[in-house]
Amino acid sequence: MPTSSPMAYALDQAAQAERAQEVPIGAVIVDAAGTVLAAAHNRVETDRDPTAHAELLAIRTACAVRESKFLEDCDLYVTLEPCAMCAQAIAFARLRRVYFGAYDPKGGGVEQGARVFHQPTCHHRPEVYGGIREAECAALLRDFFAARR
Amino acid sequence: MPTSSPMAYALDQAAQAERAQEVPIGAVIVDAAGTVLAAAHNRVETDRDPTAHAELLAIRTACAVRESKFLEDCDLYVTLEPCAMCAQAIAFARLRRVYFGAYDPKGGGVEQGARVFHQPTCHHRPEVYGGIREAECAALLRDFFAARR
Repeated sequence: MPTSSPMAYALDQAAQAERAQEVPIGAVIVDAAGTVLAAAHNRVETDRDPTAHAELLAIRTACAVRESKFLEDCDLYVTLEPCAMCAQAIAFARLRRVYFGAYDPKGGGVEQGARVFHQPTCHHRPEVYGGIREAECAALLRDFFAARR
Repeated sequence: MPTSSPMAYALDQAAQAERAQEVPIGAVIVDAAGTVLAAAHNRVETDRDPTAHAELLAIRTACAVRESKFLEDCDLYVTLEPCAMCAQAIAFARLRRVYFGAYDPKGGGVEQGARVFHQPTCHHRPEVYGGIREAECAALLRDFFAARR
């Protein structure tokens, strides 16, 4: 399943989350050839699982596809800056690059707060690119929360 | 399944992990009455899943048992200081207390490195008690790695 724009696919996953009454966050993992190994959206409410973030679900799926605990030649695209849980999972999976959409000043764990990849306790640091299609990623979240206030 | 010593149970889980060729770490979640809701050990190798830490597996099981994404009246016992991934998952699950055995200077995310519970991006901070049966918890890990060198 190749795709020319993994972040567009991640945005589509986020839109699916919204339709499922989930916080609209989507994630996609592609291999070095650009083939999609996993796509997931946040399922915390549906699964009643506080760990069911899009990134964690995508990592688990991609590892199952690969039959490997490492995803060293793979890149992750996610519509929101990963939290500390997901950032540490990204490090454990040894993902090559992380592309994220909106920054998350309240809950992010990459550019703020725990800054997981910058800690001496973090043994793999992916390349990180933030702000990819940021406006669209942020708008999905803003509209979702505005509708619930 | 009540138990007088959840950490003894967590140590038993860690020993089971060792027998399965997994890094010997075990975790147990008990409710306010002391009833065990979940017990798990590290399954990263067996499941080829870098997120399959004892704490994460125990949280997911306890949430499934409770049919809730929150475990607000529950306590987690784990033989090693949680990493940043597991610490953030503990915060998301709103666990009441965390009791851990050995400190983890190289990979911990509670007392070192990301210090997840001390970040402004962390919205629930459990009570934390480290060093519970520390010598036994540390010995299991030390012996495991010594045997592999």
